[in-house]
Amino acid sequence: MSNSTAPDEEGRRPPRVVALGGGHGLHASLSALRRVTTDVTAIVTVADDGGSSGRLREELGVLPPGDLRMALAALCGDDEWGHTWSEVIQHRFRSEGDLHGHAVGNLLIVALWELLGDSVAGLDWVGQLLGAHGRVLPMSSVPLDIAAEVAGIDPLRPEETTVVRGQVACASTSGRVRSISLIPEEPPASPQAVKAVREADWVVFGPGSWFTSVLPHLLVPELADALVSTRAQRMVTLNLSPQRGETDHFRPETYLEVLHEHAPKLGVDVVLADRGTVDDVEPLTSVVRRLGGRLELDDLNRGDGTPRHDPERLAAALERILTE
Amino acid sequence: MSNSTAPDEEGRRPPRVVALGGGHGLHASLSALRRVTTDVTAIVTVADDGGSSGRLREELGVLPPGDLRMALAALCGDDEWGHTWSEVIQHRFRSEGDLHGHAVGNLLIVALWELLGDSVAGLDWVGQLLGAHGRVLPMSSVPLDIAAEVAGIDPLRPEETTVVRGQVACASTSGRVRSISLIPEEPPASPQAVKAVREADWVVFGPGSWFTSVLPHLLVPELADALVSTRAQRMVTLNLSPQRGETDHFRPETYLEVLHEHAPKLGVDVVLADRGTVDDVEPLTSVVRRLGGRLELDDLNRGDGTPRHDPERLAAALERILTE
Repeated sequence: MSNSTAPDEEGRRPPRVVALGGGHGLHASLSALRRVTTDVTAIVTVADDGGSSGRLREELGVLPPGDLRMALAALCGDDEWGHTWSEVIQHRFRSEGDLHGHAVGNLLIVALWELLGDSVAGLDWVGQLLGAHGRVLPMSSVPLDIAAEVAGIDPLRPEETTVVRGQVACASTSGRVRSISLIPEEPPASPQAVKAVREADWVVFGPGSWFTSVLPHLLVPELADALVSTRAQRMVTLNLSPQRGETDHFRPETYLEVLHEHAPKLGVDVVLADRGTVDDVEPLTSVVRRLGGRLELDDLNRGDGTPRHDPERLAAALERILTE
Repeated sequence: MSNSTAPDEEGRRPPRVVALGGGHGLHASLSALRRVTTDVTAIVTVADDGGSSGRLREELGVLPPGDLRMALAALCGDDEWGHTWSEVIQHRFRSEGDLHGHAVGNLLIVALWELLGDSVAGLDWVGQLLGAHGRVLPMSSVPLDIAAEVAGIDPLRPEETTVVRGQVACASTSGRVRSISLIPEEPPASPQAVKAVREADWVVFGPGSWFTSVLPHLLVPELADALVSTRAQRMVTLNLSPQRGETDHFRPETYLEVLHEHAPKLGVDVVLADRGTVDDVEPLTSVVRRLGGRLELDDLNRGDGTPRHDPERLAAALERILTE
């Protein structure tokens, strides 16, 4: 795609980073990572069943393109060309008709898929259009559904668990998500994604919707194997605030406990958390150590009251960690 | 857009050609003209109310993008990049749902219009994407409707005329179209289109749906003025066969008579017709002379039985005429 692996004047090459996730969390991660390295590969969940993606998936039988589109937009080139096409693909139609809510980039990606018959090639063409700083890959070559084991949907029976199916339903459940699984079980990984993980220097999990965007990668067998066995360092960026439904009442260490439950063999080298979200550092440090890593606290939020990562602050923290 | 007006080694610059029309006829004209010159401007009818364009126009209140898209595709760059994006914009969704029949390029053009708020700038961005050999402009900055005076809809009263409204209705009427008008009357011309006509060396009318794609330009006052007063030479390429409804039973000279009725002051320098479509050359020659021009006969059809111009044969004829 770009000359992303060219060494600098002192012969060092930029770190090869793989970012895992989906949606707005991955967009935040990529918006920071593009400032740190020129060699980024995003590996994106393909289980979305809501909005424009959900409709396209149902109408045309394709992978849900929305999270892939958002990742591509985050990696757009720095010039007017890159920014304009990024805005174009992010543009949504507003009407009282059939197109309402569709993002243009979703339609463009799907058209390339239909034309080329190859999901990775289609995404690479959009990446070239944007002059993207890296590559965006689907985690699996087939559309997936998420099923969640959810407790407490019936307030009278708080310990009873129910299986909820679909990303939207899981993310908005009134109960507490305990664990997730994929339908179909053991889906095929995208070979390019597996290769990227094996060749990476760093693998970054999160931030993002924990059960529906971050954990699904660990349930794709070949991808999970690669994530466990890669020589890359593994980093986890924690969320700034619990998400209603999915991670209500989560404490910072809960994210890691859930990660461990879904991938018991996965070691973690670094956990990055926003200082303001950690009121008691002891239990978090304890879980981080148990996973084999160290904790990095930093100021990462925008400081505007919204629970969103500031791209520059996140980039500064990642720069320090990834290039030390 | 491109270095299209650069002089060649002998200091000659390529002829500046403006092509007028819409739909498949203009696509054929542009597919030939791109082989003859690097300086082409297409000026496209914006009265389509059918198919994907008609739906977009109704749902989003925009210019109908389909004929503009088709013209851009015809001018795409010669390399893999240009051809691939041309195929992408021409790609149509096929489904049993809301997107069925929409051409991707229509959606892309409309998104750029919504984002940039400028129809010409949006088309120029798509032109740049395709590495287009020239520029595509709408004839007017507002969506138009065509109204046709049609005779013989009621077979019992063959001389009674009825007004039929809408491009689709006019093109498919069972009667004989006598004349057309635009709604709104006297619409504003695209200033860039007027400028292109004034600065052209050649202006080419047709081939194409005569009443609904070729003649409408003459009913936009500023554009008609420019077409009458430009120092450019004016050429008319006749259709290969009458079109059901619109031009049923037309003889070759009838196209010119109708053109003259809609723009009495318009002179014509060259009329190009396929040799096989002219069985009696006398009346055609007579009308051509009355308009001030000369007749050129050539073999222009594909020779496969379809009434379509062969791009290479048409290009060879245009090359001879435009660069003599």
